[in-house]
Amino acid sequence: MSTNDSRRNLFYAQSGGVTAVINATAASVIQAARSRPDAIGTVLAGRHGILGALDEDLIDTAQLSASDLERLMSLPGGVFGSCRFDLDAPADNPAQYDRLFDVFAAHDIGYVLYNGGNGSMDTVDKLSSAARARAYPLVCVGIPKTVDNDLEGTDCSPGFGSAAKFVATAMLEAGRDLDAMASRVGRAFVMEVMGRNAGWLAAATALAARHPDDPPHIILMPEVPFDEAVFLDRVRETVERLGYCAITVSEGIRHADGSLVMEQSHDRKGHVQLGGAGQCIARSIHRALGYKHHWAIPDYLQRAAGHLVSANDHAHACAVGQAAVDYALAGMDGVMAAIRRDADEPYSWSVVPVAIAQVANLERLVPKAYIRDDGLHVTDAARRYLRPLIAGERFPAYLDGVPDYARFRLASVVKRLV
Amino acid sequence: MSTNDSRRNLFYAQSGGVTAVINATAASVIQAARSRPDAIGTVLAGRHGILGALDEDLIDTAQLSASDLERLMSLPGGVFGSCRFDLDAPADNPAQYDRLFDVFAAHDIGYVLYNGGNGSMDTVDKLSSAARARAYPLVCVGIPKTVDNDLEGTDCSPGFGSAAKFVATAMLEAGRDLDAMASRVGRAFVMEVMGRNAGWLAAATALAARHPDDPPHIILMPEVPFDEAVFLDRVRETVERLGYCAITVSEGIRHADGSLVMEQSHDRKGHVQLGGAGQCIARSIHRALGYKHHWAIPDYLQRAAGHLVSANDHAHACAVGQAAVDYALAGMDGVMAAIRRDADEPYSWSVVPVAIAQVANLERLVPKAYIRDDGLHVTDAARRYLRPLIAGERFPAYLDGVPDYARFRLASVVKRLV
Repeated sequence: MSTNDSRRNLFYAQSGGVTAVINATAASVIQAARSRPDAIGTVLAGRHGILGALDEDLIDTAQLSASDLERLMSLPGGVFGSCRFDLDAPADNPAQYDRLFDVFAAHDIGYVLYNGGNGSMDTVDKLSSAARARAYPLVCVGIPKTVDNDLEGTDCSPGFGSAAKFVATAMLEAGRDLDAMASRVGRAFVMEVMGRNAGWLAAATALAARHPDDPPHIILMPEVPFDEAVFLDRVRETVERLGYCAITVSEGIRHADGSLVMEQSHDRKGHVQLGGAGQCIARSIHRALGYKHHWAIPDYLQRAAGHLVSANDHAHACAVGQAAVDYALAGMDGVMAAIRRDADEPYSWSVVPVAIAQVANLERLVPKAYIRDDGLHVTDAARRYLRPLIAGERFPAYLDGVPDYARFRLASVVKRLV
Repeated sequence: MSTNDSRRNLFYAQSGGVTAVINATAASVIQAARSRPDAIGTVLAGRHGILGALDEDLIDTAQLSASDLERLMSLPGGVFGSCRFDLDAPADNPAQYDRLFDVFAAHDIGYVLYNGGNGSMDTVDKLSSAARARAYPLVCVGIPKTVDNDLEGTDCSPGFGSAAKFVATAMLEAGRDLDAMASRVGRAFVMEVMGRNAGWLAAATALAARHPDDPPHIILMPEVPFDEAVFLDRVRETVERLGYCAITVSEGIRHADGSLVMEQSHDRKGHVQLGGAGQCIARSIHRALGYKHHWAIPDYLQRAAGHLVSANDHAHACAVGQAAVDYALAGMDGVMAAIRRDADEPYSWSVVPVAIAQVANLERLVPKAYIRDDGLHVTDAARRYLRPLIAGERFPAYLDGVPDYARFRLASVVKRLV
């Protein structure tokens, strides 16, 4: 760490739900920073996101060797720890910002790179404004990350492609199982994927299908109000034709009145129990149509699947990290390193800066053009958009039958503040 | 198909839950049969297991080319369809056996190879006895398959190793996610895996850990009566030490009184709702300790994961198929092709015949020596047993981001009976 020359240190942190490739972004940021020793002292990572700055719990990434960074490239999860924490508005809590800028000053931080989703871009925006208001010399850059793919201003968000590849593969494979087990009784399978408001991951399971009758037969997204009668008709029609029906459900699907589709029940002690959307849908099929029913909830598995990373997603994750360092050094405060699609096929893309103030706190939902008219599946336009995002494989090394993921024990720097 | 010489046809069928490697067994059976044109006419596969024989719904596998068989080697699911159907006892339903042997005779079937778990081995045993009683010349051989690994007489069952590799990898990856998201609130993650009576798949998640504090921190198996107080104490102790706790639960864990651990509740319409073991355990943690809780249910994903096949499991699946054909041609009626372990490390094994009458309908549970004294984890002996079963990778080809699994449309042979 250097404080007695023109170089400044760079603060990097991870925020929100982690992904299979956010550590690839981290490794790229650190590699890019090391390639500019003229301008950057060291990269100080916040432990658990911005909380690491508030707690002055900083990790000097100089302790990671070049080969550590290579291993970090393939490590799912968030190596520095993440957080779900939003800064208050500067006017509401000036003490919070006093503390942040004290920590930044104490560690000679001149650059902040924050890696996360919508909430994180809002954090970047607030930090940028607060620094200007205080005349603290700081360049703040956002780096996109979310398996939900709901960030505006970027064609896609790193992390989404790998999660999408996992859920599409899961649906493909479960579909082969279902096909083998189909019987006269009829069989329904429901997979509940992440997505509280945006159906991107659910939509991506459409890529499991190469033929019109391949699973998934129905995709329920939060963008479309759930109509049980129409849905059950389609399930019955599918089972009568194929012997089974495979359905993807976003966790956040809602009724027309806006209420979540979930079971509400009471256990013997009177506690209210909320069943998830997948379970609710599977049971409603069983009740209405009598079919055998199964449901799967991949939960963390879908966003942590380092064993099934999309090569394009990984390339995006690296590129936005590299670009964010470039932007920071160019003094481009308040921008996010975004993915721009240049062509669908052959797929080509580039990284471009977008003004964070224009994208923070927006939520990018699956557009109408990507949803089939009946609301129960996606369109070819959606497939064209989604296909390159899951393309290419990048497998980790294996040891004793499971991925050989690195395990880092990272020391914090000595605190300089009381 | 040949009926006018000394060659006889071979009936092969798949039964019970399908796996990531049962089609590798099928491909090996067909390849082995083709290498003996002097003795075997063709392999007729039953559509949906023994039901294919009862329905005279037979698939002449001659329609599969050599390159089709290579692709079949990597296809999860059951290409000929499976069934959950047990034959009646011959004395109870002679008409059922009349029909079976009429079909066998009409198609000149001299060999039956049945690929499944405990129930399937019972079917082989019954067919063998019935053929002898009728003086129908038939050699019946069992081929093991079950992700539950609960077949006696074999060191392991093909299908288990790949499912085990998937759940171990899933726990490893979810653990990295949890580690990043750990916060002062405490976090618990529960993954419910298959296994109604046997905890083999739950035990296999222990292979996710390379260090004592790695996930899973607790493994609940059906072999150990569930003690909620002891369990919750361990969860709290783990969260206080690490910030989170990762738990694997077999779907079939039971209370000391033998009742299943599941939530029973009523929805607003009064329907009884049964929550699975994973959900029940996750909620009990939240209720008792207040931690954030998540649960995952991989369901079919764990047994269909052709993208994460264990190379050793695949080799087993092929070898038992090949051996079963050898046994059939050697006239070894009423045997199962079993895996014998010759050494743990370096792992070596061979295929040996075992008398089916001695293993059918038994159920191999996780032995005491593999369960830690406190009942909440496994022993090193368990790890030594399990490790080679998930070892080695055998990845499928990919196309457009997802595995390029073959898709066969297989015609049935013309029926010869009314």
